[in-house]
Amino acid sequence: MTNGFTPSPLFERVERARRRKHKFKDTHITLAHGSGGKAMHELVEGLFLEYLRNPLLEMLEDQAVFEVGKTNGATSASGNIDERNSTRLAYTTDSYVVTPIFFPGGDIGRLAVSGTVNDLAMSGARPLYLSAGFILEEGFAVEDLKRILASMRAAAEEANVQIVTGDTKVVQKGSADKIFINTSGIGVFESLVHISDARAQVGDQVILSGSLGDHGTTIMIARGELELETDIASDTAPLNLLVREMLDEASRLAAGDAIHCLRDPTRGGLATTLNEIALSSEVCIQIDEERIPVREEVKGACEILGLDPLYVANEGKLLAIVSPEIAEPLVARMKENVYGREACIIGEVKAEPQGIVAMRTGFGGTRIVDMLVGEQLPRIC
Amino acid sequence: MTNGFTPSPLFERVERARRRKHKFKDTHITLAHGSGGKAMHELVEGLFLEYLRNPLLEMLEDQAVFEVGKTNGATSASGNIDERNSTRLAYTTDSYVVTPIFFPGGDIGRLAVSGTVNDLAMSGARPLYLSAGFILEEGFAVEDLKRILASMRAAAEEANVQIVTGDTKVVQKGSADKIFINTSGIGVFESLVHISDARAQVGDQVILSGSLGDHGTTIMIARGELELETDIASDTAPLNLLVREMLDEASRLAAGDAIHCLRDPTRGGLATTLNEIALSSEVCIQIDEERIPVREEVKGACEILGLDPLYVANEGKLLAIVSPEIAEPLVARMKENVYGREACIIGEVKAEPQGIVAMRTGFGGTRIVDMLVGEQLPRIC
Repeated sequence: MTNGFTPSPLFERVERARRRKHKFKDTHITLAHGSGGKAMHELVEGLFLEYLRNPLLEMLEDQAVFEVGKTNGATSASGNIDERNSTRLAYTTDSYVVTPIFFPGGDIGRLAVSGTVNDLAMSGARPLYLSAGFILEEGFAVEDLKRILASMRAAAEEANVQIVTGDTKVVQKGSADKIFINTSGIGVFESLVHISDARAQVGDQVILSGSLGDHGTTIMIARGELELETDIASDTAPLNLLVREMLDEASRLAAGDAIHCLRDPTRGGLATTLNEIALSSEVCIQIDEERIPVREEVKGACEILGLDPLYVANEGKLLAIVSPEIAEPLVARMKENVYGREACIIGEVKAEPQGIVAMRTGFGGTRIVDMLVGEQLPRIC
Repeated sequence: MTNGFTPSPLFERVERARRRKHKFKDTHITLAHGSGGKAMHELVEGLFLEYLRNPLLEMLEDQAVFEVGKTNGATSASGNIDERNSTRLAYTTDSYVVTPIFFPGGDIGRLAVSGTVNDLAMSGARPLYLSAGFILEEGFAVEDLKRILASMRAAAEEANVQIVTGDTKVVQKGSADKIFINTSGIGVFESLVHISDARAQVGDQVILSGSLGDHGTTIMIARGELELETDIASDTAPLNLLVREMLDEASRLAAGDAIHCLRDPTRGGLATTLNEIALSSEVCIQIDEERIPVREEVKGACEILGLDPLYVANEGKLLAIVSPEIAEPLVARMKENVYGREACIIGEVKAEPQGIVAMRTGFGGTRIVDMLVGEQLPRIC
């Protein structure tokens, strides 16, 4: 590191990221490049990483983790800043372009706060501060902007974070669609955790915090492309307090680092997230179709829409891969939180075949669940 | 602060911000709301601040400044975290929507890195890490994206910062204009500085690092709305190394805090930036028209375009308000840096009339220089 600051000990990811290098051959950007699936991986690993490569970006997790500290502090033999003088931070960003901007269960404002809070929380850090950058289309109604700001305020209060810096740009009518919001966030590590896509171990249990597909299905229905009357609502929510409770419970039961992987299965859905973990950890993840909660209305809507809930974005769910001895009591603890009421164990980590997600189906067979290919749902978040 | 972390001692700004509260009465967003001038101030203070209010956001500086540290550290009597365990950080964000995306002297990528680096540097912090969020229009040429990424890499290398986390969204053709980039950034304070719009003091000297209007004029010409053949190029550049040298020189000459205000006069130009400082510091800032450097070609182009260089955006210039005893040697030191070659003293801080920027004109008279009103140049950055 040239600037005197050292990253966290997650370097193990770097070599893995290097090994699964993609070549990027497309000549034009397509909607699939924003899908969260294979095309986006190719864009990120084959292009963004090629140009902007550095050890922190190379980890390709949903957040960067690094230490900052006083440079006048002693430097330890390991090259790390003296721990007494350094603070470990998580840092992340996401842009939100969801359409429609208001939908059952939330809006672009609640999404912009929750999504970034969740990316921080999934590293084990406590989210503290957010930035907000607004791109507004000329002619956008101020009443709508007020509603979005009120929603951001409520979500920030719920998550106990503060939006401390911001920016506004206005573009001519037709140069953007209503409103795009970028948020970035900073979180601080308060306890020793070691959460990474690369830490899934054979025997670990796979926990899901609740039902799949609510957000993506809600958005598709809200677009009104088909006349569906349902009660489905987006699950958009900040999950940092649930994560805090899980980390506390894990510490009480065993050690804080008994939670190995934590992810929010957003774009690309559970299937893509599990594939990323299986690849990074070089394990097989086996899930049971019958144990995966999906609301009946979501199942029905997905059938009509031609969607698979395994690939639909969630914005208020998390996936945890944990040591087997803490799995059951951890699920019990999660159920006490409003966002973990339907928590359950949906599978287990196996040794072989490496890099594969396998699902035992209701009929007793097993099928391979691949990463999302192509573009399923543009502008879902 | 509810989350156990305390902001920097810049609270003096809060009361001032409260006093100059704006009412926001517009019903629809117009281009003027993104101009950097009065309409944008009304939007930010009358709407964004009303909804998202917190002590850090209330300061309305170009960056938030706060301390992070271990919560298990002792808490001092002042309520601050024990200084041995805390680190003072600056945090900022900006979205970039400039059109055209390539222009003489730079492109949207160099701008996105430089602009955010500069917002951090102007607080006196050392920029360390950036995030980058891309919103791409379906059909955008990958060759153009590669050129932009190469430019971001070069600017990041020049500024010695790393882009450590990112995000990509793709929207349908027609829902955005080619590419929008949001960057946020984190910087760390390595020395005791106290830079704020509220610190200009009577007798202080006003220093400008170089000629005005290059960026904005270049963009207007690059749009090809008039057939002008000129050699004007944007000044887009990261200024953090220049700022570092200035802080070092100030420490050597007097004390690090002899630099009172530091700003990059971007949207709204020098006139708007000086007005913000005059209001925050409750002083009069007097500048001399004849001492303000403007290139002949820029002057000529501005006349044809109907622009006033005082209001045109700069992306590689800084304004410093400093104790009189360090002004001359500081300017001499600035001239040694490639981005400070034309540094000069352009004015002085007076007591009265408070909140006013006055300019002595070439004819010997004095005129009041107001903040930018209305929209001058949309999508300039």
